[in-house]
Amino acid sequence: MARIGIVGSQGRMGGVLAGAIASAGHKLSGGVDRDCGDIGELAGKSDALVDFSAPVALQATLDACVTAGIPVLIGTTGLEEDHHAAIDAAAEKIAVLQTGNTSLGVTMLAHLVNEAASRLGDDWDIEVVEMHHRMKVDAPSGTALLLGEAAAKGRGVDLAAHSERGRDGITGKRAEGAIGFASLRGGTVAGEHTVYFAGAEERLALTHLAENRMIFARGAVKGADWLIGCEPGRYTMPQVLGL
Amino acid sequence: MARIGIVGSQGRMGGVLAGAIASAGHKLSGGVDRDCGDIGELAGKSDALVDFSAPVALQATLDACVTAGIPVLIGTTGLEEDHHAAIDAAAEKIAVLQTGNTSLGVTMLAHLVNEAASRLGDDWDIEVVEMHHRMKVDAPSGTALLLGEAAAKGRGVDLAAHSERGRDGITGKRAEGAIGFASLRGGTVAGEHTVYFAGAEERLALTHLAENRMIFARGAVKGADWLIGCEPGRYTMPQVLGL
Amino acid sequence: MARIGIVGSQGRMGGVLAGAIASAGHKLSGGVDRDCGDIGELAGKSDALVDFSAPVALQATLDACVTAGIPVLIGTTGLEEDHHAAIDAAAEKIAVLQTGNTSLGVTMLAHLVNEAASRLGDDWDIEVVEMHHRMKVDAPSGTALLLGEAAAKGRGVDLAAHSERGRDGITGKRAEGAIGFASLRGGTVAGEHTVYFAGAEERLALTHLAENRMIFARGAVKGADWLIGCEPGRYTMPQVLGL
Amino acid sequence: MARIGIVGSQGRMGGVLAGAIASAGHKLSGGVDRDCGDIGELAGKSDALVDFSAPVALQATLDACVTAGIPVLIGTTGLEEDHHAAIDAAAEKIAVLQTGNTSLGVTMLAHLVNEAASRLGDDWDIEVVEMHHRMKVDAPSGTALLLGEAAAKGRGVDLAAHSERGRDGITGKRAEGAIGFASLRGGTVAGEHTVYFAGAEERLALTHLAENRMIFARGAVKGADWLIGCEPGRYTMPQVLGL
Repeated sequence: MARIGIVGSQGRMGGVLAGAIASAGHKLSGGVDRDCGDIGELAGKSDALVDFSAPVALQATLDACVTAGIPVLIGTTGLEEDHHAAIDAAAEKIAVLQTGNTSLGVTMLAHLVNEAASRLGDDWDIEVVEMHHRMKVDAPSGTALLLGEAAAKGRGVDLAAHSERGRDGITGKRAEGAIGFASLRGGTVAGEHTVYFAGAEERLALTHLAENRMIFARGAVKGADWLIGCEPGRYTMPQVLGL
Repeated sequence: MARIGIVGSQGRMGGVLAGAIASAGHKLSGGVDRDCGDIGELAGKSDALVDFSAPVALQATLDACVTAGIPVLIGTTGLEEDHHAAIDAAAEKIAVLQTGNTSLGVTMLAHLVNEAASRLGDDWDIEVVEMHHRMKVDAPSGTALLLGEAAAKGRGVDLAAHSERGRDGITGKRAEGAIGFASLRGGTVAGEHTVYFAGAEERLALTHLAENRMIFARGAVKGADWLIGCEPGRYTMPQVLGL
Repeated sequence: MARIGIVGSQGRMGGVLAGAIASAGHKLSGGVDRDCGDIGELAGKSDALVDFSAPVALQATLDACVTAGIPVLIGTTGLEEDHHAAIDAAAEKIAVLQTGNTSLGVTMLAHLVNEAASRLGDDWDIEVVEMHHRMKVDAPSGTALLLGEAAAKGRGVDLAAHSERGRDGITGKRAEGAIGFASLRGGTVAGEHTVYFAGAEERLALTHLAENRMIFARGAVKGADWLIGCEPGRYTMPQVLGL
Repeated sequence: MARIGIVGSQGRMGGVLAGAIASAGHKLSGGVDRDCGDIGELAGKSDALVDFSAPVALQATLDACVTAGIPVLIGTTGLEEDHHAAIDAAAEKIAVLQTGNTSLGVTMLAHLVNEAASRLGDDWDIEVVEMHHRMKVDAPSGTALLLGEAAAKGRGVDLAAHSERGRDGITGKRAEGAIGFASLRGGTVAGEHTVYFAGAEERLALTHLAENRMIFARGAVKGADWLIGCEPGRYTMPQVLGL
């Protein structure tokens, strides 16, 4: 039984995280949010933190965990380069797992996408499409980028240099070797991602459907628990799941 | 048996149009393309023209048809407002049918989308996603816009004022009443369109899949034949199919 | 505010029905199940009953409602001909709504399927496929049959005489005019249905996805409330929703 | 350049095979069918045969190839145990590749299915659903069985002992560890296969779509060419493609 604290306890993931911590037999050590709670105090009484808040809160979370000497799982989306640099710096002192998606199914999908991208030729065009609820404020989703990254790694190319995002208007032909992204928004969709490999007269469509956010909470709690006792460093969901 | 001519005879649709004209028992009166053939001469010896070329060729096609007094079906995509104005002007003298999609299945899908949009409340978010082959140069497809138009009409709103296209980056929450569009490109996909109606904890996905371009050629030839003898005016595919 | 009772209060739908009754501002008058509770007593203190139990319990539910003179909404699946005869008999004395699916989205889908089937020719083959959680004991789902019925009515044919179910082995060519059914089972899928219209080189796929069972509970409560005050007779979900 | 002969030259695959042989730079050595041509003579003047005819013709094809000492690729579906025994016997003397699907995309899909099945626990339910044109006479498709086999191998179980096929009526709960199959028929669908892994509140759907039969012909010709010069034995598509 671990003592796990929540950063972003009043956000969309707060409630399900508390439920997942309890149902996995752990103890909820407390929660903080933008306007309430002391992150340093929370870290002091926890074995690990889970952060599903916002990029603006990241540095304080990392600092508190480094001071307390405890690991942290970061599920926040919308991170920029400087956030990743901050994570790298913290990872020299504590164990950190940052991921765009904590579900087992998505982790498996990323593995399959990597496998397909590494074995199918460049003449199989890769497209990533995702659908999420109407309240989501960023596009593409962190998971879509995670899947695009898996495809790019499988192909041995740099994702940023090959992304085609937000197609609209006269785009011209598809660039050779591009990895495309498209985002749908609507209703209460918990998260649906498809990666296409479109070849000559045939295609593969590899899809993950999340029925609700509990799957992310379960995976996040599993990941936070797994981090406890790990050496400082930056870890990934596939490691948690032994892939 | 009608004499039907093709504008854009060497383009992607040229060959299948010739096949569809023959298989429907009509006579191919000839074809013109950017660098070859005389559009005036072709119109003179035809009962109707089918134009699947490019926006730049539209005015010459309309002029030739008006001079010859014959109807024309326009399947060109990427038309701007001034092209539509030119079509409206020609439609005062001849019968014109302009459409983003000539297939029976898409025409039916547009009908169903209109029906659903007119009966489901505004709390069902509408999204249109399409996938086409890697050579397509514009986004969204003409058919996606046609489906969006059917949704907007069903809801009684203006499409242009409610479109969300090319989502990328920090978009904020989905606008209330928005109709979203997303475009995928890859392989040799002839055309796949889905319209989502995403409500609270449930959603509808209405999809059309084209296996190849022959379906568009068949519908175009059927439409051109149907136009012969019609009064001057602007017609639609649902009229051709009696919907 | 109506007093609504639940038959099958300890089954899969029991809990969500109680929640839906409360959230719609009604009063839960009580619940009965196989081994507990008196159906006659429950009917006596209710304005309407909702029955999501099992076919074996149907007659007792109908009898109790007739005695108490209250309407009943029946969402039980797996009903046979004699159950429908019992419903018809009860419907001479009270208002009864029996349906394979109480969701708004499915009711709309059935409407669209009817529309497409009535306008597309017989050369568009109709197939219904559904996926549900691993605990479901009957196939096809009540909703799949409801959608098949909508297709059959649209075409003006008898469903039973045209059904192709459980294809396996050497089946021979697809029968002309057949309506096919296939059932997938797995995981915790709340309910996913697709009706295909497969024509020459193109097809439509009309899909409904339920994220969880709450949508059925909400619709059932809405239906039960709507039945209060109706004349004796057999009613349908489209009537509840004004389609 | 190889000399390749076709068994079943007048069947659905005959024409596209001839096209694929030519377009790959090989020579069509001839074709035989039920009522025309001599299989022994054809084998005598060929470097390899491709058989897409019917199970009834299998033995004659194998005998002719053994006599001529040439390899054969068998794409016939609906094979029974005795057919496989005959293939095994022939494979002691010549190189034989029997497969339910010759496309590169399906071969890759089978690889991904095996990978997912071997790494996800038994609590992820596996379902295989396929759709084919209205003329197909057997169900499930050879490709669906091939995918089911890939799943069973990944899980380390026997497919026949775990298959659930043709669900209809009161089926009871899904059996633990089952691999389900369902078949849709309609229109001109060249072939669409999806393998689901349905877990708790999330699922993967791995799909292959064939736009037309040319992909099977291309893969079959590639396979037949690859067999030339191989030692006697039974080979597989993944080997042809270096997976």
